[in-house]
Parts: sequence; C-alpha cells; structure tokens
Amino acid sequence: MGDISIEQAFQTLRHMPGQSIEDACIDHHRGLRTGIPEVIYGESKTSKQIISIATAFLQQNTLFLATRVDPQKANLVRDVLPEISYHEQARMLTCNLHEHYSKQTRGDILVLCAGTSDIPVGEEAKITAQALGNSVTSHYDVGVAGLHRLFSKQDEIASASVIIVVAGMEGALPSVVSGICSCPVVAVPTSIGYGTSFNGISALLGMLNSCAPGLAVVNIDNGFGAACHASAINRKNTPDTLQDSGSTV
Amino acid sequence: MGDISIEQAFQTLRHMPGQSIEDACIDHHRGLRTGIPEVIYGESKTSKQIISIATAFLQQNTLFLATRVDPQKANLVRDVLPEISYHEQARMLTCNLHEHYSKQTRGDILVLCAGTSDIPVGEEAKITAQALGNSVTSHYDVGVAGLHRLFSKQDEIASASVIIVVAGMEGALPSVVSGICSCPVVAVPTSIGYGTSFNGISALLGMLNSCAPGLAVVNIDNGFGAACHASAINRKNTPDTLQDSGSTV
Amino acid sequence: MGDISIEQAFQTLRHMPGQSIEDACIDHHRGLRTGIPEVIYGESKTSKQIISIATAFLQQNTLFLATRVDPQKANLVRDVLPEISYHEQARMLTCNLHEHYSKQTRGDILVLCAGTSDIPVGEEAKITAQALGNSVTSHYDVGVAGLHRLFSKQDEIASASVIIVVAGMEGALPSVVSGICSCPVVAVPTSIGYGTSFNGISALLGMLNSCAPGLAVVNIDNGFGAACHASAINRKNTPDTLQDSGSTV
Amino acid sequence: MGDISIEQAFQTLRHMPGQSIEDACIDHHRGLRTGIPEVIYGESKTSKQIISIATAFLQQNTLFLATRVDPQKANLVRDVLPEISYHEQARMLTCNLHEHYSKQTRGDILVLCAGTSDIPVGEEAKITAQALGNSVTSHYDVGVAGLHRLFSKQDEIASASVIIVVAGMEGALPSVVSGICSCPVVAVPTSIGYGTSFNGISALLGMLNSCAPGLAVVNIDNGFGAACHASAINRKNTPDTLQDSGSTV
Amino acid sequence: MGDISIEQAFQTLRHMPGQSIEDACIDHHRGLRTGIPEVIYGESKTSKQIISIATAFLQQNTLFLATRVDPQKANLVRDVLPEISYHEQARMLTCNLHEHYSKQTRGDILVLCAGTSDIPVGEEAKITAQALGNSVTSHYDVGVAGLHRLFSKQDEIASASVIIVVAGMEGALPSVVSGICSCPVVAVPTSIGYGTSFNGISALLGMLNSCAPGLAVVNIDNGFGAACHASAINRKNTPDTLQDSGSTV
Amino acid sequence: MGDISIEQAFQTLRHMPGQSIEDACIDHHRGLRTGIPEVIYGESKTSKQIISIATAFLQQNTLFLATRVDPQKANLVRDVLPEISYHEQARMLTCNLHEHYSKQTRGDILVLCAGTSDIPVGEEAKITAQALGNSVTSHYDVGVAGLHRLFSKQDEIASASVIIVVAGMEGALPSVVSGICSCPVVAVPTSIGYGTSFNGISALLGMLNSCAPGLAVVNIDNGFGAACHASAINRKNTPDTLQDSGSTV
Amino acid sequence: MGDISIEQAFQTLRHMPGQSIEDACIDHHRGLRTGIPEVIYGESKTSKQIISIATAFLQQNTLFLATRVDPQKANLVRDVLPEISYHEQARMLTCNLHEHYSKQTRGDILVLCAGTSDIPVGEEAKITAQALGNSVTSHYDVGVAGLHRLFSKQDEIASASVIIVVAGMEGALPSVVSGICSCPVVAVPTSIGYGTSFNGISALLGMLNSCAPGLAVVNIDNGFGAACHASAINRKNTPDTLQDSGSTV
Amino acid sequence: MGDISIEQAFQTLRHMPGQSIEDACIDHHRGLRTGIPEVIYGESKTSKQIISIATAFLQQNTLFLATRVDPQKANLVRDVLPEISYHEQARMLTCNLHEHYSKQTRGDILVLCAGTSDIPVGEEAKITAQALGNSVTSHYDVGVAGLHRLFSKQDEIASASVIIVVAGMEGALPSVVSGICSCPVVAVPTSIGYGTSFNGISALLGMLNSCAPGLAVVNIDNGFGAACHASAINRKNTPDTLQDSGSTV
Repeated sequence: MGDISIEQAFQTLRHMPGQSIEDACIDHHRGLRTGIPEVIYGESKTSKQIISIATAFLQQNTLFLATRVDPQKANLVRDVLPEISYHEQARMLTCNLHEHYSKQTRGDILVLCAGTSDIPVGEEAKITAQALGNSVTSHYDVGVAGLHRLFSKQDEIASASVIIVVAGMEGALPSVVSGICSCPVVAVPTSIGYGTSFNGISALLGMLNSCAPGLAVVNIDNGFGAACHASAINRKNTPDTLQDSGSTV
Repeated sequence: MGDISIEQAFQTLRHMPGQSIEDACIDHHRGLRTGIPEVIYGESKTSKQIISIATAFLQQNTLFLATRVDPQKANLVRDVLPEISYHEQARMLTCNLHEHYSKQTRGDILVLCAGTSDIPVGEEAKITAQALGNSVTSHYDVGVAGLHRLFSKQDEIASASVIIVVAGMEGALPSVVSGICSCPVVAVPTSIGYGTSFNGISALLGMLNSCAPGLAVVNIDNGFGAACHASAINRKNTPDTLQDSGSTV
Repeated sequence: MGDISIEQAFQTLRHMPGQSIEDACIDHHRGLRTGIPEVIYGESKTSKQIISIATAFLQQNTLFLATRVDPQKANLVRDVLPEISYHEQARMLTCNLHEHYSKQTRGDILVLCAGTSDIPVGEEAKITAQALGNSVTSHYDVGVAGLHRLFSKQDEIASASVIIVVAGMEGALPSVVSGICSCPVVAVPTSIGYGTSFNGISALLGMLNSCAPGLAVVNIDNGFGAACHASAINRKNTPDTLQDSGSTV
Repeated sequence: MGDISIEQAFQTLRHMPGQSIEDACIDHHRGLRTGIPEVIYGESKTSKQIISIATAFLQQNTLFLATRVDPQKANLVRDVLPEISYHEQARMLTCNLHEHYSKQTRGDILVLCAGTSDIPVGEEAKITAQALGNSVTSHYDVGVAGLHRLFSKQDEIASASVIIVVAGMEGALPSVVSGICSCPVVAVPTSIGYGTSFNGISALLGMLNSCAPGLAVVNIDNGFGAACHASAINRKNTPDTLQDSGSTV
Repeated sequence: MGDISIEQAFQTLRHMPGQSIEDACIDHHRGLRTGIPEVIYGESKTSKQIISIATAFLQQNTLFLATRVDPQKANLVRDVLPEISYHEQARMLTCNLHEHYSKQTRGDILVLCAGTSDIPVGEEAKITAQALGNSVTSHYDVGVAGLHRLFSKQDEIASASVIIVVAGMEGALPSVVSGICSCPVVAVPTSIGYGTSFNGISALLGMLNSCAPGLAVVNIDNGFGAACHASAINRKNTPDTLQDSGSTV
Repeated sequence: MGDISIEQAFQTLRHMPGQSIEDACIDHHRGLRTGIPEVIYGESKTSKQIISIATAFLQQNTLFLATRVDPQKANLVRDVLPEISYHEQARMLTCNLHEHYSKQTRGDILVLCAGTSDIPVGEEAKITAQALGNSVTSHYDVGVAGLHRLFSKQDEIASASVIIVVAGMEGALPSVVSGICSCPVVAVPTSIGYGTSFNGISALLGMLNSCAPGLAVVNIDNGFGAACHASAINRKNTPDTLQDSGSTV
Repeated sequence: MGDISIEQAFQTLRHMPGQSIEDACIDHHRGLRTGIPEVIYGESKTSKQIISIATAFLQQNTLFLATRVDPQKANLVRDVLPEISYHEQARMLTCNLHEHYSKQTRGDILVLCAGTSDIPVGEEAKITAQALGNSVTSHYDVGVAGLHRLFSKQDEIASASVIIVVAGMEGALPSVVSGICSCPVVAVPTSIGYGTSFNGISALLGMLNSCAPGLAVVNIDNGFGAACHASAINRKNTPDTLQDSGSTV
Repeated sequence: MGDISIEQAFQTLRHMPGQSIEDACIDHHRGLRTGIPEVIYGESKTSKQIISIATAFLQQNTLFLATRVDPQKANLVRDVLPEISYHEQARMLTCNLHEHYSKQTRGDILVLCAGTSDIPVGEEAKITAQALGNSVTSHYDVGVAGLHRLFSKQDEIASASVIIVVAGMEGALPSVVSGICSCPVVAVPTSIGYGTSFNGISALLGMLNSCAPGLAVVNIDNGFGAACHASAINRKNTPDTLQDSGSTV
C-alpha cells in the first residue's frame, strides 16, 4: 500500500467507509475499535426512540446500555421489551450483560462515594463497569469529614486494580485516596451541594488541582465515563488481540 | 434621649461625628470600636506615602502594621524610620508591637500551611496575630498528600484556641483539620497553583463547600484578615470592657 | 508508642478505625471529635431515608438535626415520628434539643438579617445555634438602606459574643456591622436578589472583599455552617475537656 | 419633508452625512450632538499619535481631553505641545479648559472615594467634570469601614447636585451614600483589591445589586464616564438650546 | 454641637435613631431622606405578607408601590384591598399615586425598548417614574436592527429630560441613543435572549463598555431602579427643600 | 447632494425615516435592505401575539417565519390561521414559502449534526435556509466519535456551497469538517450535554478556538442565524440588484 | 471500491495516509483540501523556528504567511530571509503573495474597524485576505458613537461581496452594519477596552447575541480567521475544480 | 486489633505517625505508599531552595524530579550539583533516573501533541513517565486540522499501553484518538491559544465533554500529572507487592 499517492489515499479516505454502513445511527463496530460499545444517552430521547434503538441492539444480541433514563421512561420501555433490566439508582437500562466486552481483567474495580447523595453517580459507574466485564466493589459513605470510615476500607483500597472516587461539594476525597494507594485513581465530581458548589464545578476544580499526583478526572456526574476509563485500564488483552479474535462479528 | 424625634436624631447623625476628626486618613479610634487598629494596605502605596502615614502612627505611639510591602519599598521606609521592622516572608512592616490590643487571650492560635509555597500567607497571619497580642504556633508543610504529617501535630491541634489553615491548589486541608478538632477553624485559600487553580478560586471554592461544618473562610491570600478574625475569637474581654478602660483616649 | 516505625504506624492507620464501626452512615462519635454532631442534609434525601436515619438517632437519644427539609417531607416524617419538631421558616427538623453539646457558653449569639427575604437563612442559623446549646437573639430587617435600624440595635451588637450577619443582594451589612463591633463576625451571603446577584455570588464577593478586617464567610445560604462556626467560638470548654467527660459514650 | 418615500429617505440616509467629513478620526460635531466633545482614549495610542490628534484639536481651539496617558507619554507630548497640561493622578492631558461645553449648571458635583487607592479614578472624574464646565468638590477617604468619616461630610452630601461615588473592594460606599441623600448618585467601581476582588468585578456587582434604589453604575475604573453622566445631569439648558446657539460651527 | 467628643458622638450614634421606630419593617421616613419611598420587592413575599404591609401604607395614606408581583398574587391582594391597582405588564401594584414625591420636574422622561419582549421592564420603569411624579413617554420596538424606527423618534429624543433605554440580547440600543442626544441616558439590560445572552449578562456588558460616554447602567431587568435614578435626575427641588416642607410628617 | 451641510444632513437623519412607518413592530422593508425578512422570535410571545403579527404578514403575502414556537402555541395559532405550517422538530411556523427572497443561489447548503440530540437545531437551520430560497441537504448523526460516518458523506461535503455544522458537547465536528473541505463552514454550538457542557459554552469555545482556519460561529442553538449567514453566502445576486428590482414595494 | 468490507476500509484508514508524508510539521497539501494554505502561528515560536519553517516554504515556492510576529522576531527573520516582507501593523510576515490560492473572486472584501485601536486586527484580516487572492478595501474609524461616519461609507457597504467588521468594547458595530446590508458579515471582536470588556469577551458576546440575523463570529482578535472565512465566501470556483486543476502538485 | 475501641483507635490515629518523621518537608515514604515519589514543584521555589532539597534527595540516592524550573534557575542549580540533568523543553531537573519505581510495565506509553506549541507539556509528560520506569514514544504535530498526520501513526496508537494526548485551543485531538483506540487515553489541555482559549479552559472543557467515552483529564499544562496517571496504569505489579519488596527502606 506504500506506493499509492497521498491524493489517492485522500480519495479513499473520502469515499470508502460509509458505503457499507446501512444505519447511520448505530455503530456496531465501535466495540471493536475502542473496546467500549455504543451506549445510548437517554436524557434527550423519548421512550419510543429508546425502544427503537434497543430493538436493533437486541436483534444483534449485543450488549445494550442506556444511561440517564428516568423511571417513567424506563417503565414504558420495559412494557414493550421486558427482557431489559432497569437499575433505578443508576438510572440505567441494560440487556445482554453476558455479552461482556473485556472478560479478561487485571483485578477488581473499587467504587468509593463521599456521601449518600453521590450514590446515583457511583451506581452508574458500577453498573457500567460490570457491564463491561469487570468485578466491582463499592463503598458509599466514606467522605473526608470522618476519615476513619475511609481508613477502615484500606485493605480493599490497597488491593484494587483501579479506584473510582465519586464526590461532590469540595471534592476532597480523591486527593486523600490518591495519597494512600498506588493504583490509578479516576475522580468523578458530582453536582451535589448548593451555593458555591456551582452544580459540581467546585468539586471538579478540587479534583483537577489535587496535590496528589496521578489523579485523572471526568465530567461532572459522569459515572459512565469513569467506568469506561477504569475498564480500559483493567482490561488484560490489547485492542489488536480483541480485533483478531473479533472475526465472527 | 428617648424623647428626641427621628428627625432630630437624623440631623445629629448627619453633622456630629466628623467635627472632631482632624485627619480624614487615619482612624485612630478604630481599635476602640473594633479591637483591630487601622492597618495600612501597602500594595498600592509608594514608600513616601507609607513613611508619611507611619510617622503619624509613631507620633501617637500606637501599633503600626503595613501589609503587602515588597522588600524594595521596605528598605526605603526603613532608611527613614529605622525603628520599623520588616518581616520579609510576611511582606509586613511593624512597629510598637508592645502596644498589644488584646493582651488577655483564651489560648494559642495555631497556623497550619498545606505547602511551603503557602508560607508567605501563613506568615502574614502569624505576624498579624502576634501584633494583636496572641501567642501563635505554626507548622508549614502538612498538606493532605501525606496525612501522617498532619496527624503528627494532633496534640497541638487538640489544644489550640483557634486554628488558621492556609492552603492553595484544591484547598482540602481545612476540611480535614476541621474534621479532627473542635475549636473554630479559619480557612485561608492561597493563589498557589496553576491552570484551573485560577489564582486561588479553586481553593476558595473547596473551602466554602467543605463537608466539615463550621469552617469560615476569608479572601484569597488574606492572612491578615484570618488573623483578625482569629484574634477576635481568642480575645478574653468583651468590647465594652475595652471601651470602658479606653476612657483616656 | 514512640518506638514503632512509620511502617507499623501506617499499617495501623490503614486497618484499625473501621473495625468497630457497624454503620458506615452514622458517625455518632463526630460530636466527640468536633463538638458538632452529624447533621442530616435533607435536600437530596427522601422522607423514607430521613425517617430511617432519624430512628437510629432517636434510639441513641442523641441530638437529631436535619436541614433543608421542605414542609411536605417534614409532614411525612412527623406522621411516623411525632416527637420530631419542624421549624418551617428554617426548614429544619430537630429532636432531643436538650442533648446540648456545648452547654457552657461565653455569651449570646446575635443573628442579624439585612431583609425579610433573608429570614429562612437566619432562622436556620438560629435554630442550629440553639440546638448546639447557645442562647440566640435575632433581628431581621436591619439592612444598610436604612442604617438607623441597625444603629438602634447597637447595644445588643456591643454585648454579643459572636454576631452572624445574613445578607443577600450586595451583601454590605456585614462590613458595616464589623466596623462598629469588636466581637467575631460571621457573614452569610444569601441567594436573594435577581440579575447580577447571581444567586448570591454578588453578596459572597462583597463579604470576601470587605474593607472591615476580620470578617469570616461561609457558603451561600449556609446558615447551618455559620451557626457551627459561631457555636465553636462561643464554647467555653476545650475539646479535650469534652472528650474526657465523654467517657460514657 | 413628510412626503418623501421611505425608499428616498433610506437612500439619503445612506449617502449624505459622510460627504462633508474630511477627517474620519475627529468628530468635531460630537459636542453639538451629545454635549460631550470627542475625548482621546490614550492607553492604546503612541505619544506621536496623541500629538497628531491634539494638534488638530488645538487648531480648532476646541476642548482637548485625553485619558489614561502615563507620565512618560505625557512628557513626550508636552515637549512638543507645552500648552497642554498633565494631571498626574488623573493620568489626563487637557487643553482649552476655558472652552466649556456646559457653562450653565444646576449646582456642584461631589466626588467621594472610599479609599486613597481609589484617588486616580476619582481624579479622572473630577478633571473631566471640571473640563465639561462643572464646579466639583471631592473627599477621598470616606469608606464604610469608618462611617463617621462619611457622616462628617453630610452637609456637602445634602447640597450636591450629583454625587459620584468611587469604591473598590466590596463597593459598599455608594449604597450607604444613596441611602442618605436624594440627588442622583453615580457609582464607579475600581479595580482596587486582590483575590476575589477580581479586578473590580466584586465592587461592580456590589453596586449593581445595591439595595439603595436609584444607583446607576459605569464600567470599572471609568471615572471619565461617570463624569460625563454627572455632567449631563448637572447641565441646565436642553440640547436643542445648545444646537440653536451652535449656528456658527 | 461642635464641642462634644467623638466618644459622645459615637454613643449617640449607637443609641438614638432606633428608639422612635415602632416597626422595623417599614421605613416611612425613607422618602424624606432619599426622595424615593420604601418600595416592596414582591418576588419573595406571599400575598398575605404583601396585604399586611400594604395595609400599613394605606393607613398612612403614603404612596404604595410593589414590584415583581405575579397576577395570581395580585388578585389575592386586590380581593382584600380593592383600592390597589395592578399593572399586569409591569407586574406592579400601586396605590395613592396622587401622593407624588417629586411633583416639580424638569421635563419628560422618555422610555425606549429595543424589542417587544423588553416591554415588561420598560413598563416597570414607566409606572415607577409616573408614581414618583414624572411625566413619561414610551416607545417599545425601536431596536438597532432597524435604525430608522429609532430615528423617527428623534424629536422626542432631543426634547427629553432623561432617557431610559431598555434592551436585551447584545444591548446596543443605549450606545446608539447616547450618540445622538445630550440628556442623561440610563441603560437597563434585560434577560431577553438565549444561549450566550446569559440571562442579560451580554446586554449588561455591552452597556458597561459602551463607546458612547456618559451612559449609566442598572442591574439586569431593573426597570424600577432606572426609574428611581431618572426621577432623581428629573427632580427640580433639592432634598433640603423637600425636608423643610416635610414638617408635618 | 454634496453641497448640503453636515448640520442639514443631521437634521434629515433625525426627522425623516420614521414618518411613513405606520406600524413600529413590523419592518416590511427589512428584506429589501438585508435580504432577510423580519422573523418572529416566538419564545417570549403568546399565541395571540403571534396570530396578530402573522395576520399582518399574510395580508402582505410576504414570507412569514416564526422560531421557537412550542407545539401548544403552534396548535392555537393554526386553529385560527390554518394556512400556516408547523415544523415540530424545528419548532417553527412558516407561511408563503414560495415568496423566496434569494431564488438565485450558488449551490446547495449542507447541514450536518453531530448527534441525534442536535436535530432540532439542525432542522431550524434547514427550514430557515429553505424558506430563504436555498436547496438544503442534511445528515444528522455524523459526530467525531465515529469518523467513518462523516467520511461516508465526503462527496456531499466536497460539492456543497456552504456547510452548516451543528454540534453540542465538545463541539469538535466543525473543526474536522473544516479540515476536509474548502467551502465556507458555519458552526452552530448546541446546548446538548451535561455538567461542564455549561449549556453549550463548551461547544461554543471549542468552535471559536478551532485550529481549522475559516470557521465562523453563531450563538448557541441558533440554527436560524446560521441559516441566515449561509443564505447570504449562497445568494447569487448582489443587494443592489435586489433593491432595483424591488421598486414595486 | 464498494465491495470492500468496513473492516478493510478501517485498516486502510489506519495505515495509508501517513506513508508518503516526510515532514510531519508542514502540510503542503492543506491548500488543496481546504483552499487555505498552512499558516504559521508566530506567537509561540522563536525566530529560529520561523526561519526554519519559512525556508521549507520558500523552497516549494508556496505562499508563506506567519501571524502574530512581533517586530524584533520579524527583523531577525528578515536578516536571514530578506525576500520576506513584514507588515508591522498586522504583525505578519508574508512571501510569495503572487501564489494566490483563490484568484477568481466574486467581488471585493470590505474591512471596517470601529476604532483606531482595532487597526492591528483589521490589518491582519486585510493582509490575509489579500494573500488569499482577494481585493480588499478598508475603513478604520467608523464606530457607532458617530453613526454618520459609517453611513458615509454606505456605497461601499452596499457593493461589497463580504464585509469583515472589527470592533472592541461593546462590539455593536457589526449589528448596525448587518442591519443595512445584504452580503454576509463576519464579525471580529477585539480585546480593546478595560474593566468589564474582559479582554474582548464583552465584544464577543455582543456579536453572538446580535439582533441582526446572519452575523457570524470568530475568536477574539482573530483577523486571520475572519479573512479565511471571508475568502472562502468570496471564492468563485468550487473545491473540486481546484483539485482537478491541482494535478501537478 | 479488632477489639480496641474506636476511642483508642482515634487516639492512636492522633499521636502516632508523626513521631518518627524528622523532616516535615520531604516525604521519602511516598513512593512506597503511592508508587510515585515526592516531586518538587519548582515554580515558586528559589534555586537555593531547590539545591537544598535536591541535596537531601541525592544523599538518599532516590529519584529526584523537579518540574517547572526555568533555564536560569536550572543553571544555578547545576553549578552546585552538576550530576543533575536539565531538560530544557520539559523545564525539568532530574537525577538518579536509574532508581526506577515501576520497572515492570505492561507496555509502551505513547505521547501525542496536537501542535508544536504543545511540546513543552508533552516533554514534561515524557520525561516524567520515563523517570517512573516506562518506555515512551512521542509524536508532536498530529492535530485534527490534518487528520492524515494522525492516521499515519495508527499502528503505534493500536499497540500502546496508554496514550497521553496533549492539545490546546479547542482540545479536539483526544476525542478523535479515543474514538480509534481501545487503550486508556489521558487528555492534557494546554494553555496554548488566545482570546477565548482562556489559557486552556476551552481545551479543558472540550476534553471533559468529549463524546468519546473513557477519556480522563488532568489540569491544564499538567504533563507531570498525566504521566503519573499513565504510569500507574502501565505498572505491572500491585502496590502490595511493591511494599513487600520495599522492606529495606
């Protein structure tokens, strides 16, 4: 392929990939490329739209995940597609969880929440990480106001493969956790708080400015994204291996 | 006095207090009213202006404090008024420190800094609190990235009358201190950091949103203000007592 | 204990404190450590969750405080637990107020509000401070637009042990109060206002930048936090004393 | 003129006014239209550019005002045009001050500054208002931290035609002044302060959210603009009168 | 009075004015001091609270003004107090409009709105200015997108005593008006717009940065404040005159 | 016309254009001047107001466009004026679409959306551009997360006359499109996203800072504005031509 | 090509285009793809780096453009490469301007600046547009404070193919221009101003919120980007035509 | 240990860990706990302070890393301690690089920069990752404006263990990279850009809002932090293993 000109390459780039795509909306090959399947962002979709997309996924027997689905929408979807499960705290719909994308993992993912109000975000992270084939442990009230609660989980902190730390308000928990463990820590700011919490900006800034080096951060309330990053870290096989074995897709 | 009309009261309010003031700039009676003398904000003043104001204070033998004075200005002032001391880390000029305003205190003030870069702010707090008649202890590298450093100061934390906690970056130290002590904690955010530290906004927000109840916060880099608040807390006698004894002024 | 190595200390730190905790959510020992008991933030909890937590507190006969509880939730809670009181303006639930945490105080706490719209925040401060064992006086319409209203309270201002000043809009009242008293002043910005009040940011900035030294500030609408800080100031005995007498807990 | 069509009117609007303008830069007729002559914003201009523009003004014998001119630039300009005066604190160049635009005024303009650091902005307001034909009084250290300083000026406050109040930090002075006078008050926030003063934003917000109704605000550090507004208020004759008498232009 | 000491003055200042005030909420003397009576901010008050305050005003036969009252509240108030009028577009309640505070005015106030969506703010300004004794003209769809609409009002612009210009979105109208008139212009940004209008911040910034000198600005949507400033400008007699004639109060 | 004085010109400018305008609200000549007719911003108008304005347009047989009309309002309008069409996804009302303003175009306008949630904004752009006389193609799920979807549309990208690219979240799609085409690209940020998307600010900033030169941006969610700009680009004849042919108006 | 699988296409996409690129830094084919050649952003580069890149361009005889080059750097570059021209106001280096990329244009580009301080940005736009093969006219002091200056350029406004409007402070000029012309208008906010101009944010917001539909905006001070957009609009031939004729590259 | 009371545990927590620390500043055990040694933030330190700290590290033969050291400081340090190396682009000082902390790694770390101006941040990441024992590859001009540059590195992208993507301006590169690989991606926004880049905020927001799931972000310009996170990901052995083997420390 080395002898084609850049002009030819550019023409190829222009015309090719779209030709075998029948449905612009669903990118069934995404899992192949990135190890993370296409996931439905439910907030701005009607139950009807979710049903229509879910039906397409179910026909392919691939993992179906939808985030930010409120109970009303979830009930309407499950009336039509009862094989779909709803996780109320996480506000997620899932199906075909056995279709794990990264079955071979390095260890366990630990999800820690600073307060009980952060649980929905923690659960979104947990369900997502499990759906992506990981074993997940969680503790949901271990904030810095009572550090002994955190230290009592020290063994699990020491043995985790990745830790997802979820916190609102001042967002200090990830700094503290990061200072007492050596595995990668993913910090998720939440919109919990009032006044100058500014719907999570305060927590986000606290995490981005952590004096504990090595903390990486995702968007406010983005438990899903944290789980995707943690899952990529926890995956044992490389992407190429995945694709080579992925010939039957 | 109860029988004067509001109209009379208003006229009195209008005309009276200014008549015995000779110099609009210096409020020598401020210490009487608030327990804190007038302090010179040196940043926007020339050495010549500082010398002129300091001379007026020295003539009255009252406590002289100037904040945010850089070394160059300080040298020029001390060339003329060698009895004035310069505190380089705190960037302060002081004189007549024996003129303590609140000699009777409840206990010691403890100043804690998260990192060595926060020391100038910590020193501004320390010098100010001492000038206002308090005994002050300080520890300057006890940030949350290595919590054992903080816990090693636990005895002093437990016995302090007030604690001033100075921190930049994510500003998490005051939350942690506040969770392990019962005395009042005053938090001072500093402008230390880069990127999203936004010159101290990140630390300020962290402190305002602390999950540890009872934390009170001052402006970014305002070691002086924290010391004034801490000194008011640490004062034993009430304002009225002060004023009763102040009859010779 | 001086001869254990840092490695041993660290292992102790890791494993110990959690083991005797049965319920991760409720930190009954917090009052011991910080002088302020665990308080329930009601905004993001259901009435069912509040009932469950309150029941645990009532069984221990400890002080129960819940903030930001709207009337609907409050009624549902009181249907089940009629011994709990609801303070409508303060939006708080309380029980066991006789279980005062700091019975020995230095004097009275004064709560001042700039306008009638600030009353809910002022009441949150008042109820909290009372629950923590303080005697509290309040005046609720003394804003800077008519300074004579404030000056008519001058005697109480002069004799207070701590003053909590609550103001929205431009937040100028704490500066004025701070200029005419010598006790510690805690400023609470409120979200009252419109347009560029930015839900309290304007008031917060006004307070943080006050030219009256010694003002300390809490989060927007955080009457609870202001009362905790004021209560810590107003407490007579030191934390260690508290803990020594706390042996029956 | 009533019978021309809108189409004709529009064509006239398009083509006319520019034809008798020789120099696009200088709008000598501005004073006619608005009562305020064209003023040179010196910050982004070289001394050479200022000299060139000033020469054009001097040839017409019209009032020349340039703001934000630093001493170095001012000296270079005055080397060439010695008839121009430099006002160092106000950082302004002026000439032909006898060419007053609004000689008949309603009364005096009072300029109040909260602190000495605000003086440059106060002076810019004062020099500008004088140049526009007003009699101006000023007091420059009457901030809210010592309200008696302000009340001692109460007679001048009561008799002023307009009051310009200049303040940085929390910007509370205009609220207080506005609460004790009945003439129009123009508030000028300054960039004095540090940390959360955000270069004057804090003062600006304080003024925009003042609980004292009737306060009007200009841009941060804009003493010039405040003086223009105050001068328009203080002008006795109406614009049409001005233009009728302006027939020789 | 000149021979009392500052200490005496300060004591007077402390104790006097409050003694003849029976009701902390209503400042009946405000009109005396500032020319603008106390006005009720209706947004955060219940109809019951408004009725109670209004009753107190009506008993004194003084001008009653309440802003930001929605139709539901207004109806409830008028069921009880039918003598009160409701102005739906302005969202204001008024009574005793004949109790004019500034009967002698310099001329007419002109209110201009950029678009029809700005009318509620323009009407708030108009009703307020009328209540304060001014004659008011208004034009409500003269934005910069079609400048000929504005120029067709040029005669009224030229003869106005003060002009209030109300605009949302980019807020350019006040700049244009200010460039073609010589009377004082008061600019009111509105929250009309979407996206980067940021609820009026964009309009506010446009007005504060206007290249047309002499523009003064009030808070977003603050038609009331603009009218107060305009009314103070348009008042003929000085405050002292007002107070002399105010002897019957 | 060259010999009239500037004074005369100015008087003409003042008095003329408004005299033949009967209705301040509707600027029927706008299409003449700018090529874009007056369009109704429906968000802040009642159905009654829309009906009244629409009736005026229909009587003149001119193009009627109203944006941001929700289905409820739309139904009420269509009950009275059934000849008006409603476009639900675009939330627009249109009538007289045959009254094209720019029938002669250079080519096709291509509208691309990053995700299905961006469709309402894309449809607003599409309907508007069609109403202004353009042929429009659209593709609505071609975001950067799966670049092959975009490359499959490469032929249409290469042949478009103008491309409107609509994207929320990080707003990266316009950069990528701009890097692979040579026609003008208009970027529309949308408010789709959560947390730090800040209702479209994140997408807006991404587009303004694009490393792909030549991208121009409109307000958040402003599909209408993007279509107006694109239509002006795609127009074949010059404005003067338009006006010459516009003599019957 | 239609029969290759998406998997093959993806592999091609992965491996191909990079192979014939020798120098990762210079994208000589960019002009082919986008009509705009690679341009050097000089701000963060040393004169040595600029010389090295320029040499590569000169060897290929392609158009060389570098923006944001200060005079010192420019002199160092021209000492080595004297054939390069420096445009001081525009702060640009150019060479091979005869290598026009879009020789066939639709008409003239008009560049308008609100004030003389905006000239550097206007010149950057002008030099760039000329370098890209356009005929450009400019007027540099036509701000809204004196609208007659603008109206005097009305003929050029009516006949322009595209108009670039450059303005700082409140950024109102593009709205006004857009309301009186029918060609596409590109608005460039500048960082000129002080206080709340926030280095151009105020102007940017003014332009994004313009009530004049069809305005498109670029980054603050981005004269280069505006010229690229304007040049794409003004280009006569389509991209495909360009590429077909580009076979010798 | 299970049978000690929480009170005992708390006392232990308070008094223990600090007793064996001699030097509060240097936390030699940090590497043990977190896998990342203490690193010196050079920006706010003098060369003298750096020399003093470095000497302590060199005596312990542990890895020494200092970030944000400018060339002048670096030279002064190396005059005294010539065994220290300076990396000019990365602005880092290093010593004892053979003291690798995580010798057993999973694979290679790939560092990609969008533009040449991002190189300093990319180099900080690279040097840090190498110092922490990783093999690192880098490509520094592969931004989204010319996607073929990126695709030419597709093989390395596919085989990397972790990818650090560094980008300023709109920060779109990490989204694109994340869409075509399956390993964890760490995004570093840089302060490169002007105007609305807001010193990196624009890039930061772009990355936090990426539609590519699994992206994790660090502070602006924080190449060091990204390398720490990437190194934690790339480490083969678990923290406990590290500590077991760490018994000789």
